[in-house]
Amino acid sequence: MPDRLAQQIRFIIEIDKLKHVLRRTLTPNLATTERRLENSAEHSWHIAMMVLLLAEHADVPIDPLRVIKMLLVHDLVEIDAGDTYIYDTAGAATKAAREHAAAERIFGLLPLDQGADLRAAWEEYEARQSPSARFAYALDRLQPVLLNYLTQGEAWRKHNVTSDRVLAVNSPIQHGSKALWHHARNLINDAVARGYLDK
Amino acid sequence: MPDRLAQQIRFIIEIDKLKHVLRRTLTPNLATTERRLENSAEHSWHIAMMVLLLAEHADVPIDPLRVIKMLLVHDLVEIDAGDTYIYDTAGAATKAAREHAAAERIFGLLPLDQGADLRAAWEEYEARQSPSARFAYALDRLQPVLLNYLTQGEAWRKHNVTSDRVLAVNSPIQHGSKALWHHARNLINDAVARGYLDK
Repeated sequence: MPDRLAQQIRFIIEIDKLKHVLRRTLTPNLATTERRLENSAEHSWHIAMMVLLLAEHADVPIDPLRVIKMLLVHDLVEIDAGDTYIYDTAGAATKAAREHAAAERIFGLLPLDQGADLRAAWEEYEARQSPSARFAYALDRLQPVLLNYLTQGEAWRKHNVTSDRVLAVNSPIQHGSKALWHHARNLINDAVARGYLDK
Repeated sequence: MPDRLAQQIRFIIEIDKLKHVLRRTLTPNLATTERRLENSAEHSWHIAMMVLLLAEHADVPIDPLRVIKMLLVHDLVEIDAGDTYIYDTAGAATKAAREHAAAERIFGLLPLDQGADLRAAWEEYEARQSPSARFAYALDRLQPVLLNYLTQGEAWRKHNVTSDRVLAVNSPIQHGSKALWHHARNLINDAVARGYLDK
């Protein structure tokens, strides 16, 4: 097998590990007792699908392929760094360093040009400067709000998260789509009204 | 909430169910006793990632966004129809009818234009006439060969699948990429040599 294809196949096998990185979000559509934590691979599929469905709500034109590419790769660093819960302030302090080291190793498995290309997509996503990155981030924030709402805030309450923090952490949705932020804010307020989330 | 966004959000919630559709393939990178079946959502993420990595091996130029779109949606019908094992001949006889009914319901949840658009992507994938659809299908076939090889053929042997059937079922990889088919065929032959797969 040529070296280039061999490197690509090794990378494909390595990233299979993302299916075993668990997030804090629970999956809806099941009986309460059957709920399980979502993993980062299926989460990445879900938000890539959301690009196909919600791109029309971006406030400025975005490049769908670029947004999907960013979202498909955005969690790969978690293979080494683990999923850092968005409401975990202690974890947030070390997240950048852990994920940087992970990016070095994981993207380093690929042929140089391809590793640099995927790493650039990940860095664009992290920087949140381009319209496509802002929209990608908005979808990555909206999806767990939806799932938390649909599981009656079980994960929020387990981790003692309050509505002011949920609003603050998710407010960057508005930099990608005012319509989606409007929807997310309504869900969060309704979650408080229903007792899914503490004020 | 406007009706259009409400329909899109309902669809996003509905398709979360794909995370609970189990395939026959086992996940590698774990101790043998910890292996679990892959689900169709994380599988869809994995093969969408493979487009970003392997597009250069397509024999004729393909449209990466089109291939990714087809792969993200290709298994949605399994929410109703279940995953039909590629080596299950009895299941194959009813697969088209079951999946057609599923497509009617699931894509019918969306605004008309968007439902038609995603359904067209699914039908293009199923028809395997366009270069992008042929390449998409090649990746959907290659990925389980890789995972089965890495799990010492446990799923193949459990379901009494022999090498001639594995070669026949996966030979359409060659219509998307001769290089990838060369690699898959080598893996299958090596699996026989190692005793992962019966001749």
